[in-house]
Amino acid sequence: MPALQNDTLIRALLRQPTPYTPVWLMRQAGRYLPEYKETRRRAGSFLALCKTPSLAAEATLQPVERFPLDAAILFSDILTIPDAMGLGLYFAEGEGPRFERPLRDEASVSRLRAPDPARDLRYVTDAIFETQRALAGRVPLIGFAGSPYTLACYMVEGGPSDDWHVMKTMLYSRPDLLHRLLGTNARAVADLLNAQMDAGVQAAMIFDTWGGNLSAEAYREFSLAYIAEVLSRLRRERNGIRIPVIVFTKGGGQQLEAIAASGCDCVGLDWSTSLGEARRRVGTRVALQGNLDPAVLLSSPDVVRREALRALESFGSGPGHVFNLGHGIDQLTPPENVAALIAAVHESSPKFHPQT
Amino acid sequence: MPALQNDTLIRALLRQPTPYTPVWLMRQAGRYLPEYKETRRRAGSFLALCKTPSLAAEATLQPVERFPLDAAILFSDILTIPDAMGLGLYFAEGEGPRFERPLRDEASVSRLRAPDPARDLRYVTDAIFETQRALAGRVPLIGFAGSPYTLACYMVEGGPSDDWHVMKTMLYSRPDLLHRLLGTNARAVADLLNAQMDAGVQAAMIFDTWGGNLSAEAYREFSLAYIAEVLSRLRRERNGIRIPVIVFTKGGGQQLEAIAASGCDCVGLDWSTSLGEARRRVGTRVALQGNLDPAVLLSSPDVVRREALRALESFGSGPGHVFNLGHGIDQLTPPENVAALIAAVHESSPKFHPQT
Repeated sequence: MPALQNDTLIRALLRQPTPYTPVWLMRQAGRYLPEYKETRRRAGSFLALCKTPSLAAEATLQPVERFPLDAAILFSDILTIPDAMGLGLYFAEGEGPRFERPLRDEASVSRLRAPDPARDLRYVTDAIFETQRALAGRVPLIGFAGSPYTLACYMVEGGPSDDWHVMKTMLYSRPDLLHRLLGTNARAVADLLNAQMDAGVQAAMIFDTWGGNLSAEAYREFSLAYIAEVLSRLRRERNGIRIPVIVFTKGGGQQLEAIAASGCDCVGLDWSTSLGEARRRVGTRVALQGNLDPAVLLSSPDVVRREALRALESFGSGPGHVFNLGHGIDQLTPPENVAALIAAVHESSPKFHPQT
Repeated sequence: MPALQNDTLIRALLRQPTPYTPVWLMRQAGRYLPEYKETRRRAGSFLALCKTPSLAAEATLQPVERFPLDAAILFSDILTIPDAMGLGLYFAEGEGPRFERPLRDEASVSRLRAPDPARDLRYVTDAIFETQRALAGRVPLIGFAGSPYTLACYMVEGGPSDDWHVMKTMLYSRPDLLHRLLGTNARAVADLLNAQMDAGVQAAMIFDTWGGNLSAEAYREFSLAYIAEVLSRLRRERNGIRIPVIVFTKGGGQQLEAIAASGCDCVGLDWSTSLGEARRRVGTRVALQGNLDPAVLLSSPDVVRREALRALESFGSGPGHVFNLGHGIDQLTPPENVAALIAAVHESSPKFHPQT
């Protein structure tokens, strides 16, 4: 694998000095890009796109070809793991992901096994190989997985939910069963992230989309504890080079100190947490990633520039900030606003990185 | 109006000593009760139920007749205000509230006027008179309104949304226009709450259901500032007796200190904030209301008792706790679990109120 020509992201994740603030966007390869829609059309389905390494690599590269982003993130889906566990992932048009066989009883939880990435998720690592060949060291490639709890939400509920009441009924009534499921998920997530690291990703991110829906106590017991277990199982280096890991719990701002102590290198923040206040709370323990409201990208280039500068000012001077949105980019986002955002971050951020 | 036989709620809201922790539940008059469904059926529609004082009073009383609750809360809807402003509220089956004429341009915002409660929302105060006659001083009656920002969300978006992108586009692109709208809403909310207080409610609550979807900075500028304006316009007493006000921002846990400084008597908490941590953060400035996850009520009486005790222990000893859920009760809740919750709070809480 060629050496990185732009390692700004990696350095920022490790809180090392950088000349400017690196920027990438959650879901940067996606439906707001016409070229993505064309690839998606050729794939036939979202799942076929995830499972065809050449197409997944193509989608991964698209935003990097169009914008001067500081990272690529593998095009994939967090639900590939439960799909590989045999739950039967499918996408109902306009309704999001569903499972044919959700986990509803003790027997189905007991039968569950962590997949073998080399056998069951080969398409993920193959997509990494193809992507890295095409990227040729231009920017780092980020790998990712869902958190054990977030995966369990979909696996138990069978699909997305406003309130996750099936999941929560298991949590309150059968915590023992949920702990067993989360233990299996933690092994599966760690195995997949280790396989991604072996295949060549230079950073990784754990997406805990639904942990913020738990009570403070339940979050620590059922979500963060298993994120910490995943982190403890990761090799996190390749050829002596550190592979930093970002943990992002949407709605987890109140748990910031606990997340920062979980063993991650960087905490992802949604827009409800002020970057400046977050920095004061965690000090120099971890880097911070975020946190522009994705709705800002639906306005105009002028507004985008103003709000980007506000986020940079909120974090303030010094290393350890990775600019990103506070959640995935919206499919109605005009690509020119994305261009304006990246330009604004690159142009305005050097003054926050005085030479030391 | 007869003197209150049970003023435990009022005393707890004012952080005065009580022999036990009072309890009521957000949306306690609602679809989980078969008698409510029958009243709703007779009314013909949800809106007709809100607008018919005798039926609204009947619904308000139902949970108090069935359970030994420490308060009644007026059966009404936060969207009566924009309906009275002429936006044309209706309820699409299974889709929640909608407006026929959402606010999308400068002209429609400029035309907007705060309604006169005595003329345009007479059914609200009439329902209070009827309810107080039937309650006969058994427990206090709580009045309520939506926050200026939460009302604006529905008024601009035209109905519920996952991401409130129409609203947020106005916020980021035309903050001046949104401020004008919020100013009108603040006057309307204050006028309605003052009318409710004059009509006889003994406490009031401001529901800020969507403020938690804003960035930290935007929350303070567009939601909390207008809640504070409402609070400053309220008379808050009748015949020399204080009428305490609760402010509840769902997802607002990170803003707790700021909310506590807004001028309210009590801060409502959703379940994502630990009661104990919240108490350490606000000290003795305000009372706290909450915060059981409503999903707990979908489990069993044993689990309900266990989790109720955990919440009481989290708050700890001393005055200033009003037991409630962290959000509205779910329609699938078995009434026997509600009975178990109220009994558990009444039985377990006296030990947290040692005689002083």
